[in-house]
Amino acid sequence: MKAIKDSVHDYITLDPVAADLLDTDAFQRLRHIKQLSTVRLVYPSASHTRFEHSLGVYHLASRSLEYLGVEGDRARHVRAAALLHDVGHGPYGHQTEEVIERHTGRHHDEVGDLLERTDAAGVLADHGLDPDRVAALVRGEGELGQLVSGELDVDRMDYLVRDAHHTGVPYGTIDHERLVRELRYSDGQLVLGEGNVQTAESLLLARALMDATVYRHHVSRIAGAMLERASERLIECGTDVETFRRMADHDLLVALRGDVPELGRRIEYRDLYKRAVWADLAAVPTDVVEFDHGEERATEREIADLADVDARDVVVDVPDRPTFTEAGSRVVVNGVPQRLEDASELVSGLRAAQRAGWRMGVYAPEEHVDEVAAAAEDVLGVRAMVP
Amino acid sequence: MKAIKDSVHDYITLDPVAADLLDTDAFQRLRHIKQLSTVRLVYPSASHTRFEHSLGVYHLASRSLEYLGVEGDRARHVRAAALLHDVGHGPYGHQTEEVIERHTGRHHDEVGDLLERTDAAGVLADHGLDPDRVAALVRGEGELGQLVSGELDVDRMDYLVRDAHHTGVPYGTIDHERLVRELRYSDGQLVLGEGNVQTAESLLLARALMDATVYRHHVSRIAGAMLERASERLIECGTDVETFRRMADHDLLVALRGDVPELGRRIEYRDLYKRAVWADLAAVPTDVVEFDHGEERATEREIADLADVDARDVVVDVPDRPTFTEAGSRVVVNGVPQRLEDASELVSGLRAAQRAGWRMGVYAPEEHVDEVAAAAEDVLGVRAMVP
Amino acid sequence: MKAIKDSVHDYITLDPVAADLLDTDAFQRLRHIKQLSTVRLVYPSASHTRFEHSLGVYHLASRSLEYLGVEGDRARHVRAAALLHDVGHGPYGHQTEEVIERHTGRHHDEVGDLLERTDAAGVLADHGLDPDRVAALVRGEGELGQLVSGELDVDRMDYLVRDAHHTGVPYGTIDHERLVRELRYSDGQLVLGEGNVQTAESLLLARALMDATVYRHHVSRIAGAMLERASERLIECGTDVETFRRMADHDLLVALRGDVPELGRRIEYRDLYKRAVWADLAAVPTDVVEFDHGEERATEREIADLADVDARDVVVDVPDRPTFTEAGSRVVVNGVPQRLEDASELVSGLRAAQRAGWRMGVYAPEEHVDEVAAAAEDVLGVRAMVP
Amino acid sequence: MKAIKDSVHDYITLDPVAADLLDTDAFQRLRHIKQLSTVRLVYPSASHTRFEHSLGVYHLASRSLEYLGVEGDRARHVRAAALLHDVGHGPYGHQTEEVIERHTGRHHDEVGDLLERTDAAGVLADHGLDPDRVAALVRGEGELGQLVSGELDVDRMDYLVRDAHHTGVPYGTIDHERLVRELRYSDGQLVLGEGNVQTAESLLLARALMDATVYRHHVSRIAGAMLERASERLIECGTDVETFRRMADHDLLVALRGDVPELGRRIEYRDLYKRAVWADLAAVPTDVVEFDHGEERATEREIADLADVDARDVVVDVPDRPTFTEAGSRVVVNGVPQRLEDASELVSGLRAAQRAGWRMGVYAPEEHVDEVAAAAEDVLGVRAMVP
Repeated sequence: MKAIKDSVHDYITLDPVAADLLDTDAFQRLRHIKQLSTVRLVYPSASHTRFEHSLGVYHLASRSLEYLGVEGDRARHVRAAALLHDVGHGPYGHQTEEVIERHTGRHHDEVGDLLERTDAAGVLADHGLDPDRVAALVRGEGELGQLVSGELDVDRMDYLVRDAHHTGVPYGTIDHERLVRELRYSDGQLVLGEGNVQTAESLLLARALMDATVYRHHVSRIAGAMLERASERLIECGTDVETFRRMADHDLLVALRGDVPELGRRIEYRDLYKRAVWADLAAVPTDVVEFDHGEERATEREIADLADVDARDVVVDVPDRPTFTEAGSRVVVNGVPQRLEDASELVSGLRAAQRAGWRMGVYAPEEHVDEVAAAAEDVLGVRAMVP
Repeated sequence: MKAIKDSVHDYITLDPVAADLLDTDAFQRLRHIKQLSTVRLVYPSASHTRFEHSLGVYHLASRSLEYLGVEGDRARHVRAAALLHDVGHGPYGHQTEEVIERHTGRHHDEVGDLLERTDAAGVLADHGLDPDRVAALVRGEGELGQLVSGELDVDRMDYLVRDAHHTGVPYGTIDHERLVRELRYSDGQLVLGEGNVQTAESLLLARALMDATVYRHHVSRIAGAMLERASERLIECGTDVETFRRMADHDLLVALRGDVPELGRRIEYRDLYKRAVWADLAAVPTDVVEFDHGEERATEREIADLADVDARDVVVDVPDRPTFTEAGSRVVVNGVPQRLEDASELVSGLRAAQRAGWRMGVYAPEEHVDEVAAAAEDVLGVRAMVP
Repeated sequence: MKAIKDSVHDYITLDPVAADLLDTDAFQRLRHIKQLSTVRLVYPSASHTRFEHSLGVYHLASRSLEYLGVEGDRARHVRAAALLHDVGHGPYGHQTEEVIERHTGRHHDEVGDLLERTDAAGVLADHGLDPDRVAALVRGEGELGQLVSGELDVDRMDYLVRDAHHTGVPYGTIDHERLVRELRYSDGQLVLGEGNVQTAESLLLARALMDATVYRHHVSRIAGAMLERASERLIECGTDVETFRRMADHDLLVALRGDVPELGRRIEYRDLYKRAVWADLAAVPTDVVEFDHGEERATEREIADLADVDARDVVVDVPDRPTFTEAGSRVVVNGVPQRLEDASELVSGLRAAQRAGWRMGVYAPEEHVDEVAAAAEDVLGVRAMVP
Repeated sequence: MKAIKDSVHDYITLDPVAADLLDTDAFQRLRHIKQLSTVRLVYPSASHTRFEHSLGVYHLASRSLEYLGVEGDRARHVRAAALLHDVGHGPYGHQTEEVIERHTGRHHDEVGDLLERTDAAGVLADHGLDPDRVAALVRGEGELGQLVSGELDVDRMDYLVRDAHHTGVPYGTIDHERLVRELRYSDGQLVLGEGNVQTAESLLLARALMDATVYRHHVSRIAGAMLERASERLIECGTDVETFRRMADHDLLVALRGDVPELGRRIEYRDLYKRAVWADLAAVPTDVVEFDHGEERATEREIADLADVDARDVVVDVPDRPTFTEAGSRVVVNGVPQRLEDASELVSGLRAAQRAGWRMGVYAPEEHVDEVAAAAEDVLGVRAMVP
């Protein structure tokens, strides 16, 4: 059996389906999509790709299935889904998924069409695998789908430990082998076995600390918001959204250089906007917190007018209210599966901490920060924190 | 300058005082005291010593002082205190400190007498260091004493990351270099600089998860309680408490074999008592939670009588209510130092989680577990959980 | 002082010059050049960049200078040279350097022109640094230049340990901190102090094992040879060589897609040629071993004719004879600096092992491997090994 | 299945035999024997035990057997042998094995009697395992015995990587997973499969570098030689050799304190003799190199007389000529298994390097170093190097 050396899990042994899927263009494309998109502008070692991460998820899925005693056809479909779970990502992964959803109505975990029209289709067919079944698993459907996408999925386990390895930030270093060993099914629900409240908590805590220090680092958010604006403008300039969706990171960088040169250059050479406004939940009016995309863009223009700068020089970035899906992960306590938020007093504290960490931002080129800040406070009615 | 290779911090460079202190018997003795005493009965890789840990604390103290810009005589005293902070420990470290305190009234961080009457005294004198000043720093006194013993001390930073390295449990893997770099003094208080709420939280969370999975693992607690009983009996059999206090681990093991052979053998070969009762705060009457040592011992005899077993076959283990000193660590938020429990919503959740994790235990030889369980529930009025 | 988190050296503290150089386009461009170019087609975790590596080299240079007691202006120039030592690399680093040298006569360590005409020039001027002096240090000139480029340079130390971290192959994990601590100057020569024969040997051995398993892995060599052919064709198609030289990896991939689509696609999606011939030194006539570039290309055409395939379907890859510059590193033995090859019996064995590991290859698309193999054996007079 | 957390291999899953063997006194005793005996006087983090190492060897044996497809009764015997391979060690492991062999004629890998008369016997019987067969495997007999003790055994793989982890010296960090995956049987010989010359070389190189920097560090050798002398004196004072052989480290330390107090104290508190003579092969007359134990001891007395010091103040330490068993490990090259020394030019270089690294020593208390050095040079006819 073919084995691939991985810096996190050491050797990853591939089953025949995985070995063939690996050679498809649909999967090889993931070599060119960074796992953490703009985060590497903060943590330079974090250049790892969705290709590498997908292999890791495949590996953890394989081990979970072994411990769970799932074999044969069912296991082969899950392993294929684990390997392919990210093929639906556009360039720069999560940073472009909202753009793509707005234009296509399609989420990155909708991979059904790709499994039918890319060269992955032939491989699945050769091995007798059903693309619809694989696509459903990627969406997290069914008992086994929870392993691929759910509160206790192996996707999360791999990215936490891998992102820790590559950024150098230790908080993501969970005990993934324990998690994988302690997975059970209880009435069709994936749960952690008895004695694992702390194991489940550790997963939450790891994600919360990585969120604060890595995933939501303000520099990465600024670059991400700039990239989103640039991507929209690229599509407005005539790039077909289906073409856009299938780009890899390098395609997007080069395409921006042609059609959105100013933002493209800034992203490529990390010459980023600065924070004009940075405000927490308490400082932001509720209607602003609830802004949809259209309102965000309209507000940008309004602020720009008031500040007397070009509309492209203002980026308003209002993230969703913090959610906390892992709170719903289940763990057996005294013989009964419970939701973690019922089993652990930590969850409510963590939820509050995440709310406390929420920030909205308004960004502008360094030379316009002052006037944009003043205009934004006026237009939005926010009080800006000292960043 | 002499350097020592360490598996956690790589090379540790010793100043002339440290190089000389290293060669004293008072310090070399720490080679023979395990850092985690009975924890290694659960995690076999955790055989590291207080010698190694003390070097690590010295190293982190040195780096902190550099970043804080503290030099000269003050720095030399702090470094010496960091190196010597554990010389007051008895055999098996924390597991015997209550026995020693009961008999001598002296806590392990009272090292004043040792700095005067061991061979460390000569070294301090040769280098012009004041043993009283060093001893005060070990007790955490003064501005600089907080570095050695306090909510943000380097002792904690070293043991978390070192215990993680040696047990293989990743939860203790904090970003100690960031902690050391972000230390500041504000009005004589040691604090973490702006932007470090998560850094402070991570320290708490690491301790909480290590507590649950490592430090308070029930097998280690059983062995520890057995060791404490055995130590008391050793002293009752005539071992002088000052002699006892200066033993190292191997001395104690061999001494037990002579005077307390049954328990000694059990500890040496990990043939441990089992849990007859294991109960959380809700299941234990308040007066039992508040038991002092005498009440614990009296209750053991009562349970033994009722169960018709030898008094030595019952061990009652009621830990203190959980405390949470790190909650008082300070971090600068918007320019103002705040206690972490005021700055972070996580702290109250963590406090609740620690309360939820509190357990009292009654332990007995495997063949007497059932009758001891029944008697203990009767005598103590607790409901025993399924362990 | 600004600090950057690195997955290998943890925090890297930047001096003011480095902090400003970091923000130049000339340096930011290195974010887009992978450290190991085509190696990541074998080791998927190896996506790290020359940006990250350059920071690592800067860090080790800083530490070396501290231990060596070099300060002030001299140290600032060395640190700048360490940071900038790779700005002269073209896309895909070493894989295109021969193409660039053939067309421009300029080696990648000739950075003088770049330090004058890129935005790095302004930063150096602002801080009073002499670009010529920095460029000379990058070329390894002078006493201090040996730290940047020489048998014991910090470049090598960083790449070995970093490539090990990112590939997952442990052989490069040297004791870099010991190396840095043991550097000395003896009569203007950089040497390792007394007691470091094994330290020096370990550096050689690490490089030799990484060479065999990572740097010269045949899959990476095939991809590299294909990339070189594709690059030449790109220049023949009209891409200006100065433009080519300043491309980053993503620019090259996209440019190839336009002008050399077949090879471009193969490289992007790892659809590589296979080995038709793979032969060691003993099996290859001396004149073939000595082939220059022109002879290589002429032979490709000859083989293609004989095999009746397109000339683009044959790649002849004759590497240089193995050299072994580290053999000349110096180490103090009994008070006298010696060349390692004189101090260590290992060196000759290693040299022989490297000769034994030399391979020439002829590569072709999978469907033409057989006829190309036959023709190549005929034309070159080699006996092909079973790969 | 029971699993144990290990700092090197993460979770180690125990089969039912191993789970029961773990609880025997014969195996638990290994908790109290350090893996690297006196090495931890040089590398303070190296406090790991033969208990932990034995678990690691068991783990690697299990994985090897899986890859080799060996199952059932044969596999169970091999796994038991792997777990028990070190139960025959005396206190301080290798440091006392010559003493024990001289007095009992029994090598530490002769565990037959222990498997019959300790509590391990019952466990083997309960599970239907043949103690003679296990003992033969520990001696390396038979096809499968090579896995436990031989040129490519898993013992070596575990100790290299574990000693690296615990000392912090990276040289032992081999790719053990690759080694385990590439093991094959060819005509009853354990070999590494095609393409693994470097894999085999890496094992040799790791051992050679660990030898030089860790295992044969002069401070550890001095302490070891002192310990050997002290052990002999303990037996001369009346300690029964069978009792001695079954001691653990702490028993020996305490016993020495009673009967050999001066040396005992020096070993316990690392107050070691210094090198009076330190000489390489070229500087030592052949008959001295060939000294047996009796000649060594007679020479010590002769030197002491001439130097006018107590006979106990001179320790002569002449190690065996370097051997190199790994040179005989086999690897498949072009389809044919070859001895590594035939397949790799490195081996002869390494052999020479090991010869070059050989040193004999004469040690004495610091205050007598000069007179002992002069006398020793006279008596032995050696030229002493500057240490």
